[in-house]
Amino acid sequence: MNQLFPAPDHLPAWAALRSLSEHPLDLSALGVLTPERLKAYICRGGEFNLLYATQRIDEQTLAQFQQLADQSGVIKQFLQMKKGAVMNQISNFASENRQVLHTASRDLFRPDPDHPEAAAQARQECDKLQAFLADLDSGRLTNANGEPFTDLINVGIGGSDLGPRAIYLALRAFGIGQRRVHFIANVDPDDAATILHDLDLRHTLVNVVSKSGTTLETMTNEELLRAAYQRAGLDAGRHFLAVTGAGSPMDDPKRYLRTFHMFDYIGGRYSSTSMVGGVLLGFALGHENFREFLRGAQHIDQAAEETNIRQNLPLLLALLGIWNRNFLNCATLAILPYSQALIRFVAHLQQCDMESNGKSINRQGETVNYQTGPIVWGEPGTNGQHAFYQLLHQGTTIVPAEFIGFRQNQYGEDLRVENSTSQEKLLANLLAQVLALATGKQDTNPNRSFPGNRPSSLLMAERLTPRTMGELLAIYENKIAFQGFIWNINSFDQEGVQLGKKLAGTLLNHMVSQPEAKSAAEADDAPRMLLRAAGIMPG
Amino acid sequence: MNQLFPAPDHLPAWAALRSLSEHPLDLSALGVLTPERLKAYICRGGEFNLLYATQRIDEQTLAQFQQLADQSGVIKQFLQMKKGAVMNQISNFASENRQVLHTASRDLFRPDPDHPEAAAQARQECDKLQAFLADLDSGRLTNANGEPFTDLINVGIGGSDLGPRAIYLALRAFGIGQRRVHFIANVDPDDAATILHDLDLRHTLVNVVSKSGTTLETMTNEELLRAAYQRAGLDAGRHFLAVTGAGSPMDDPKRYLRTFHMFDYIGGRYSSTSMVGGVLLGFALGHENFREFLRGAQHIDQAAEETNIRQNLPLLLALLGIWNRNFLNCATLAILPYSQALIRFVAHLQQCDMESNGKSINRQGETVNYQTGPIVWGEPGTNGQHAFYQLLHQGTTIVPAEFIGFRQNQYGEDLRVENSTSQEKLLANLLAQVLALATGKQDTNPNRSFPGNRPSSLLMAERLTPRTMGELLAIYENKIAFQGFIWNINSFDQEGVQLGKKLAGTLLNHMVSQPEAKSAAEADDAPRMLLRAAGIMPG
Repeated sequence: MNQLFPAPDHLPAWAALRSLSEHPLDLSALGVLTPERLKAYICRGGEFNLLYATQRIDEQTLAQFQQLADQSGVIKQFLQMKKGAVMNQISNFASENRQVLHTASRDLFRPDPDHPEAAAQARQECDKLQAFLADLDSGRLTNANGEPFTDLINVGIGGSDLGPRAIYLALRAFGIGQRRVHFIANVDPDDAATILHDLDLRHTLVNVVSKSGTTLETMTNEELLRAAYQRAGLDAGRHFLAVTGAGSPMDDPKRYLRTFHMFDYIGGRYSSTSMVGGVLLGFALGHENFREFLRGAQHIDQAAEETNIRQNLPLLLALLGIWNRNFLNCATLAILPYSQALIRFVAHLQQCDMESNGKSINRQGETVNYQTGPIVWGEPGTNGQHAFYQLLHQGTTIVPAEFIGFRQNQYGEDLRVENSTSQEKLLANLLAQVLALATGKQDTNPNRSFPGNRPSSLLMAERLTPRTMGELLAIYENKIAFQGFIWNINSFDQEGVQLGKKLAGTLLNHMVSQPEAKSAAEADDAPRMLLRAAGIMPG
Repeated sequence: MNQLFPAPDHLPAWAALRSLSEHPLDLSALGVLTPERLKAYICRGGEFNLLYATQRIDEQTLAQFQQLADQSGVIKQFLQMKKGAVMNQISNFASENRQVLHTASRDLFRPDPDHPEAAAQARQECDKLQAFLADLDSGRLTNANGEPFTDLINVGIGGSDLGPRAIYLALRAFGIGQRRVHFIANVDPDDAATILHDLDLRHTLVNVVSKSGTTLETMTNEELLRAAYQRAGLDAGRHFLAVTGAGSPMDDPKRYLRTFHMFDYIGGRYSSTSMVGGVLLGFALGHENFREFLRGAQHIDQAAEETNIRQNLPLLLALLGIWNRNFLNCATLAILPYSQALIRFVAHLQQCDMESNGKSINRQGETVNYQTGPIVWGEPGTNGQHAFYQLLHQGTTIVPAEFIGFRQNQYGEDLRVENSTSQEKLLANLLAQVLALATGKQDTNPNRSFPGNRPSSLLMAERLTPRTMGELLAIYENKIAFQGFIWNINSFDQEGVQLGKKLAGTLLNHMVSQPEAKSAAEADDAPRMLLRAAGIMPG
């Protein structure tokens, strides 16, 4: 097992990279950004090009990236994952012990999928979805008055919210008719109240998403919505859909109009291409657009099997991230899409990356001696330029950046103002940031000097479509998995959220139970004291 | 001048804190979180309590915080700022050389404001706003068909977008009638297209916000909207409002229904309490709610004059931040509001903090030898718990957190599910996170162990209202200014955004100009080459 999962800091390539990192390339030095470098440091993946000439690397670094990938067996692990190996585990200790098969959820387009059984299950759910959407489109499925459903509320949190929400917002330009999707995630009752104030429930479906069928926030919000439907005199059974694991407490056809299944071999944060994303994306964009989205993701999954790191976009992105994190010691990563449609995509990646790789224990249960997942954050440009870019250019902390851009906009509505279109202005600003971070600029006024030498990459495609959205999602999903393989951590569990859940239960018991006579020690324990200090309980 | 603006790392308190930081308090040690500590480490500010027992500090640290505040003259600088000193400057070098008087924009409630002239200007604009809102409410001001305006599009970016947007979203529960506000910020033409697809322009006002009247994104989007009004056969002069500096290119009453002024002594990111926030908040919430919001901010501005750090909430928050940043070496700060209404407040704080304090040059023009502003990020809880909290609890990087909570929700709509309300569940989760981060938990399974000792604070108030929103905003604005004073940096300029703007201009010229015969060197410069590598220009 340790042969298969080596400790990265014991690999020869790790030591070689450590040595190279003592004198990394200075991007601000004259003559570094040559035409040759800019042309050579491009990696193609699907319809995307990754431009990485503005990273602090050279041929030597790239050669060691290749060594690190080979020595850690990252592609071997990826292939095993896709074929159904139990990758979600910690050896010698109790762990989830599950397969990791989110790639199967989009492996629907080949005669020989990597994992036939999981792909068959995915196809079956897709067929159910297609039939459901056809019933909606044809008018066979309507509300009690025979009217069509125009709105859908998605009730889910974390992986059942962030990815689907980000993708829906990214692809609204491809929506069919006037269908709209709304999201309730937070247990904060104001989240549901805000949505309900704006909606006509008679024309609204509710899609409840929880693999376990027991997620506190989701169950609570479902009850809240069922009560609202009851108050409105509507039969929830005609409006509520379920996406849940087979056999979960939610898997009860009597309570739902339709039920779609998700499987324990797909983690929540990797579930956007399963029915977790499928139901709401199918409703909003139509079945064909959802399939195009899956096709894009599947294409990247296949391309990511390439062992040459310079021809494997997600793997190269993963290695550049490890270089910046472990060797140039940068604790954060800014992801900066120059597309307003990607307004929530970074929030999804923040989840997918930080929940996967925010770990300190390796797959043998030992504490790691190196940094793992960075803090991922960001907002769309150009907005961010007017917000936090000051720190990116002149702050005391170096923030590596991953820019994302598209040569065309989505709607094709644009206007020439002062001799250029908005899209041209957007692109000019995007490339200007890549250059400014890298080259900097000296000035006799120290406050107007830019040190430069701040690394970034640029992911470029022609246009954000269902296809490229699927590709972009899979690029990042695979990047994150590759990093986890190299760091030798389990990217597929989330034990770190358990303590908070448990303590919340304890606190809730204190809050709702009648005050009882307790021993002095018990009455003064930290949870009770904190409740008092916060003014939530008297005393 | 250097007497007034000392270098923090030369102060005795800095050395003392350095020494204390070698053995900071271990929050996970048994018996640390005593009832006494939890009760004693609470600081009141307005309607908020700051609970800071879960920071890695003790009485000695607090004593040195007081010394640092005294020795750096932070309160003296704050008083000078409010009275109109030229705080936005770098000595010996060209700089903006401006006063910093955002506090005057809400100093409307006392007979003797700190800066009478600026307060009078603020009052004058508020009076104009009140008259405008009264005209809307009474029906004196309507569209060409005599119908009321139901919607307003705010066109602005950075400071003219993030703060007002965050506050609008935070206070929708207090809206009057059905008035809605929409936002166009990004030069990405899809931003405007998405908004326009959903709106009836006949009932829509447009509020164009730019201090200089020359902001690229805003001018472009204004033209785009004016073209849309023209296509719809509407007279833009009856729909467009302006918020701009007196004498700017936008200050042209013929083109706007009403014009409101902003002043060069208020930086964009500090302008939410000026007409930049005023027009859209007044439209959505009514004049009285906007004044309540200002009252909240003003109350905190006054309370923040207190020199005892244990009775000055924003100052204590600033010092805790410096402790975590400069002495415990944490590069980021997570701000985690347990209120869905604060969904965009962290994006605003990210701007306000990082643009203010992401600096490497002190106020004498010298490069600093210490860290300045951290990377600020975060999302509302409980959503974040299902996203990135894994890393907060078990990642290799320590992330100090500032939690924000309210004992009551906004709408008062709630439901008891499994014996507790949603609001109770929300609060239990909030406090559970504070505890879990601090105490951790040992387990024989290393993957289920929590190291703990991860610092956080908790800001609690009764309910998020216009008043407490104003307080919360001013708490953070003043915290950020206090940190800048102590770090001896200019928190009020943003020279770091200039290089990107300049290079964007160069790139735009390349993109829109006809191909010309150039010397080989010129044709191969980095901007042109990058345009080609990105597939934007042929070659």
